[in-house]
Amino acid sequence: MCRWLAYSGTPVLLESLLYEPEHSLIDQSLHARMGVETTNGDGFGVGWFGPEMRTPAVVREIGPAWSNRSLREIAGHVRSPLFFAHIRASTGSAVQQTNCHPFRHGRWMWMHNGAVEGFDRVRRDLALAVDPRLFTGIEGSTDSELMFFLALTFGLEEDPPGAVARMAGLVERTGRERGVRDPLQMTVAVTDGVRLWAFRYSSRGASRSLYYSSRVETLRALHPGTAFLREASPRTRLVVSEPLGDLPGVWNEVPEGSCGVVRPEGDALLPFAPLPV
Amino acid sequence: MCRWLAYSGTPVLLESLLYEPEHSLIDQSLHARMGVETTNGDGFGVGWFGPEMRTPAVVREIGPAWSNRSLREIAGHVRSPLFFAHIRASTGSAVQQTNCHPFRHGRWMWMHNGAVEGFDRVRRDLALAVDPRLFTGIEGSTDSELMFFLALTFGLEEDPPGAVARMAGLVERTGRERGVRDPLQMTVAVTDGVRLWAFRYSSRGASRSLYYSSRVETLRALHPGTAFLREASPRTRLVVSEPLGDLPGVWNEVPEGSCGVVRPEGDALLPFAPLPV
Amino acid sequence: MCRWLAYSGTPVLLESLLYEPEHSLIDQSLHARMGVETTNGDGFGVGWFGPEMRTPAVVREIGPAWSNRSLREIAGHVRSPLFFAHIRASTGSAVQQTNCHPFRHGRWMWMHNGAVEGFDRVRRDLALAVDPRLFTGIEGSTDSELMFFLALTFGLEEDPPGAVARMAGLVERTGRERGVRDPLQMTVAVTDGVRLWAFRYSSRGASRSLYYSSRVETLRALHPGTAFLREASPRTRLVVSEPLGDLPGVWNEVPEGSCGVVRPEGDALLPFAPLPV
Amino acid sequence: MCRWLAYSGTPVLLESLLYEPEHSLIDQSLHARMGVETTNGDGFGVGWFGPEMRTPAVVREIGPAWSNRSLREIAGHVRSPLFFAHIRASTGSAVQQTNCHPFRHGRWMWMHNGAVEGFDRVRRDLALAVDPRLFTGIEGSTDSELMFFLALTFGLEEDPPGAVARMAGLVERTGRERGVRDPLQMTVAVTDGVRLWAFRYSSRGASRSLYYSSRVETLRALHPGTAFLREASPRTRLVVSEPLGDLPGVWNEVPEGSCGVVRPEGDALLPFAPLPV
Repeated sequence: MCRWLAYSGTPVLLESLLYEPEHSLIDQSLHARMGVETTNGDGFGVGWFGPEMRTPAVVREIGPAWSNRSLREIAGHVRSPLFFAHIRASTGSAVQQTNCHPFRHGRWMWMHNGAVEGFDRVRRDLALAVDPRLFTGIEGSTDSELMFFLALTFGLEEDPPGAVARMAGLVERTGRERGVRDPLQMTVAVTDGVRLWAFRYSSRGASRSLYYSSRVETLRALHPGTAFLREASPRTRLVVSEPLGDLPGVWNEVPEGSCGVVRPEGDALLPFAPLPV
Repeated sequence: MCRWLAYSGTPVLLESLLYEPEHSLIDQSLHARMGVETTNGDGFGVGWFGPEMRTPAVVREIGPAWSNRSLREIAGHVRSPLFFAHIRASTGSAVQQTNCHPFRHGRWMWMHNGAVEGFDRVRRDLALAVDPRLFTGIEGSTDSELMFFLALTFGLEEDPPGAVARMAGLVERTGRERGVRDPLQMTVAVTDGVRLWAFRYSSRGASRSLYYSSRVETLRALHPGTAFLREASPRTRLVVSEPLGDLPGVWNEVPEGSCGVVRPEGDALLPFAPLPV
Repeated sequence: MCRWLAYSGTPVLLESLLYEPEHSLIDQSLHARMGVETTNGDGFGVGWFGPEMRTPAVVREIGPAWSNRSLREIAGHVRSPLFFAHIRASTGSAVQQTNCHPFRHGRWMWMHNGAVEGFDRVRRDLALAVDPRLFTGIEGSTDSELMFFLALTFGLEEDPPGAVARMAGLVERTGRERGVRDPLQMTVAVTDGVRLWAFRYSSRGASRSLYYSSRVETLRALHPGTAFLREASPRTRLVVSEPLGDLPGVWNEVPEGSCGVVRPEGDALLPFAPLPV
Repeated sequence: MCRWLAYSGTPVLLESLLYEPEHSLIDQSLHARMGVETTNGDGFGVGWFGPEMRTPAVVREIGPAWSNRSLREIAGHVRSPLFFAHIRASTGSAVQQTNCHPFRHGRWMWMHNGAVEGFDRVRRDLALAVDPRLFTGIEGSTDSELMFFLALTFGLEEDPPGAVARMAGLVERTGRERGVRDPLQMTVAVTDGVRLWAFRYSSRGASRSLYYSSRVETLRALHPGTAFLREASPRTRLVVSEPLGDLPGVWNEVPEGSCGVVRPEGDALLPFAPLPV
C-alpha cells in the first residue's frame, strides 16, 4: 500500500500541503489510517512543474519521507502550480529509486496505489505487451511502472482515459488467464503538466480510498479563517489517497469505478471501466 | 524511542532472534507495542562477537531495518554467542550512521533506549566532561553516544556499574543545574564480549520497558516443543526492550532502578542508582 | 580535498554550470586535475537562493555527485541568481549528510576546501570556543563546520572578512599551541544571499587553487559565440576551485592571502590575513 | 567497467585481500589502472561462503566501496574459504542494489566485468529468452544480471562452461541480428560454493584484463617473507581483474578466449568459445 497526493491550482510551497496539514502526507508516512499498512517508509517521490519547465522535476529517494532532509528543503523552497507526491510501502519489490513514484516519460507523470495481484505470474506477459520501442525505458521492477508503460503503449499521450482502460483490460485478461480472480487494484494519478486525471478502480469493486477536495468557493465559505484558501484560485484541486485532516465539507470520496479530470476548461467526473484489448 | 535486544549464550544465527519470533525486533521496527513511537525506522545496528574476533563487528545503516537486505543477509548467515541489535526512532538528531547504535570502543559495545531530557541545554557541558583523549572519538550528535563516552571517561572498562552510575549522576546534576526536572531516561546494554550488563533507570522512576528471559531449564519445561531451546546452554539469556512474543513464563520485567549482569560465573540482578561526581 | 563553485549573477539553470561545461564540477567529481585527490565522491551539496526565498534551499547527499539523480533533476529544473555547489573528498571524517557542504545558518551559507591540520589535537579546544548558544547547532564532525561556527561566533553576520580572519587566527594559535606548524589550509565561500565572499589562505602560503571569472564584457568580446554570455548581466561572477574548461581569458587566479567580494555595488579584491583573538 | 576478485583456498579474513594489498580492490575503486574508467564508485558487493552456510551471504550497497563502513566491518571480521568481491562503474544503468554484483541464485554466485554492446537494442529479446519460471527473479536492469539468468536458463547448474558458452552464443547472435558488430565483452566469475569458474572472452578478441595467481608453492619460494603464504593451502587461488600489486611472479594473464576452473580435484585452464543456440 502507498499514499499519494496530486495538486493542481494556485502555485503553493510544497510544504504547505506535504507537511503543514494536521494529517499531512508526511504524517501519513508514519501513521496512515485508511490503508492495509500504517507505515509507508519504503521510499518516496515528488514531481513538480514550474515556470519555464518543459518536463517536471522528479526527485525520488529510498528512505522514509518523514526523516528526509532533502525533501524538507525542496518542499520548503519550491512553489508549484501542479505537483505529485507519493510515499511507498513496498509489497515485496526492492526498495530502490527506480521503484519509487512518480514515474516520468517526457512531460508525463504517473503514480499508483494498489497492486497487480499475482504479479509474479503475469509480469513476463505484461512486459512483452509493452511497445518494444518503450521497453528499454523500464528501469525498475514494480507493477506500477509496468502499468505506466502499458498505458503509454496504449496511447496515454493521446487519450488518457482510453489508454488506462485498455491497460486495465489487459491486466485483468492476463491475470484471469493465469488464475487470478481479482487481478487489479488501483488508484492512479496521471498528468501532462496541464491536465490531471485520477482513476479509482479494482476488479472486485472494493478499491483503495481516494478523495478530492471541494470547490474553493465552498471551502472558503466553510472555513473563512484558512489563509491558504484566501489566495487559492477557483480551479484549485487536491486529489489524495487519504484526507489531510478532519475539516468537515472538505473531502469527497471519488466513487468506485470512476475517473476524475482536472483541467483548465473545467473539472469532470466520469465512469471508468476496463476496455478489452 | 528505540528498541533493542542483547543476546548471550549458545551461538545462534542472528535471524533466529531478529526475524523469526512472532513479535521479533524487525517486526517491532514497523509495529512496536510498548513505546511512545510505534515506528522505529530511523536506522539500525547490529554488533556481534564470533570466533577469533578481538573486537565486535558492528554494522549500522540509516534506512529502516525491515527492508534492509544487507541486514537480512548478515542475520541469515552469521552465528554469534554474543550480539546486540538496535532499531532507532530519532527524537530529533540526524539520521546518520554515526548516530546509530551500538557504539563501539575497542572491545566494548553500548546501546541505549531513552533520552537525556533538555539535551540542547546540557550537550556542551556534557561534551566538556568527556576525557579530552577520548573527545575526538565522538563522531555523531546523539545523547546516547555522549553517555557512552562519559561512561568510558568514568571507568567503564574497569567498573561498568560504577561508571554508568557516575555518568547518570553527572547527567542528572547537569540537567538540574539547567532547570530540567527529570534529566535522564534510559535502558542501556553494555558488553566487553564476555559479560553483558543491562541497566534500567529514569530520574522520575518511570523507566522505559526492559525484560530478560527466564532460565533455559524453566523455558524448556514450559515449552518442550521449541527447537531453539533444546540446543541452548543453561547460561543463554536475552535482554529486550519489549517481549518477542506472548509465550507465558518467558519474560520477566527488569525492575526499576536495577542492573542485570550476565556472565560466565552466573547472572545477578543488582540495584542501580546514580552516583555523585 | 574538495572542489566547489559559487555563482552570482543572471539567474541560470544550475545544470548550465554544474553539468554542461567541458570540465564541469560534476566532471571534477570523477576527474579533478588540480587537487591532491582526483576523486571527489564522498558526498555533495548544492544550496540556492530564488524568488521569495528567505533562506537558501540546501540539498546535501552522501553518494557521489556524478551518479546522483536527484541532483540531476534539481540542476535541470531550478534557476538561481546565487548558488553554491560542493563536492567532497573526505580526509577521514564520516561520510554523512551533516558533514557535507554547504553549511547553513539562517540566510548564511558556507563551504570550504582544505583542512585544519592536526584536527584531532585541536577539535575540542575549537569546539569550546564556539558561542555556547550556537554550540548545539553543530551536527557533524568536520573541521569545515566548526570553522563556520567559529566565524559565526566572531561576528560573521556583521563583518564577514573580520570574522573569518579571527576564526583563522584562533585556528592558527590553537594549532601552534599543540605543535602544528601550518595549522590552516582553506579556500572558503560565504554568502548572505546578496553578497558573496571568497577567501584563499593557508598558514604556509601555499593555498589550494581558487579562480574567479573575468568580467562579462571581457568574456563576451573574447568568446562572442557563447550563448550563456549573451544573456549574462555585467555583475555575473563565478568563483571556482578549478577552472571549468580551458577557454583563454576566462579564469583568473585569486591571489594568495586574499578575499574577493561580489556584491551589487561592485566587486573588490582585498588582502586577507588572520587576526589575533 | 568494473573490477572484481574471486578467492578460493585457506579461509582468510576478507580484509587481507580487499584492503591490505598495495593495489587492493578497495584501492582500485578509487584508482584502477587497467580499465577504461579509473573510478569504480557506483556500488559494490561481496559474497562469501562459510561454515554451515548452504547459500552464500551477499552484501551489496550502492555507495563507493572505499568509504563504506559496513564493508570495512565485514571484511575485518569475516573469514571465508571462498568469496567474491566486485566494485562497479556503471555504464548507464541505475545505481541501485539490484544492479550490484555478485548476483545469487540458490548456491550460485555470478559477477561480471564488461558489457553487452548495444544493450538497449537487444535487452527485450534477451529477456524473452530467459526461462519464464526464472523471469520473475530478475530484479535489476543490467546486462550482467540478464547474462546470469540466460546462463541459468541454459543449464548453468549442470554444465557451467557449456551454459556460459550458449549464453555468449545467444548474445552474439542477437546482437548481430540488430546490427552490433562486437556484441559481447566479458570477464565472468561463477561459483557453486565448491568450484570456481572464470571466463575471459570478447567478440572482437580484445577482452578486459584477467589474472590468476601462481601456485602457492611457487609464490612461497619467490616471496618467503609473506605471512599469508605460510598458511595458505596448495589449492589457494585468486582470480582478479587487475593485479593487487607489483610482486614479480605472482600474476599470470588468463588467455583470450579461455575458462579457468578452480576445484578440489585440481585446477584447469580450457579454451572457451560461444556455442550456437
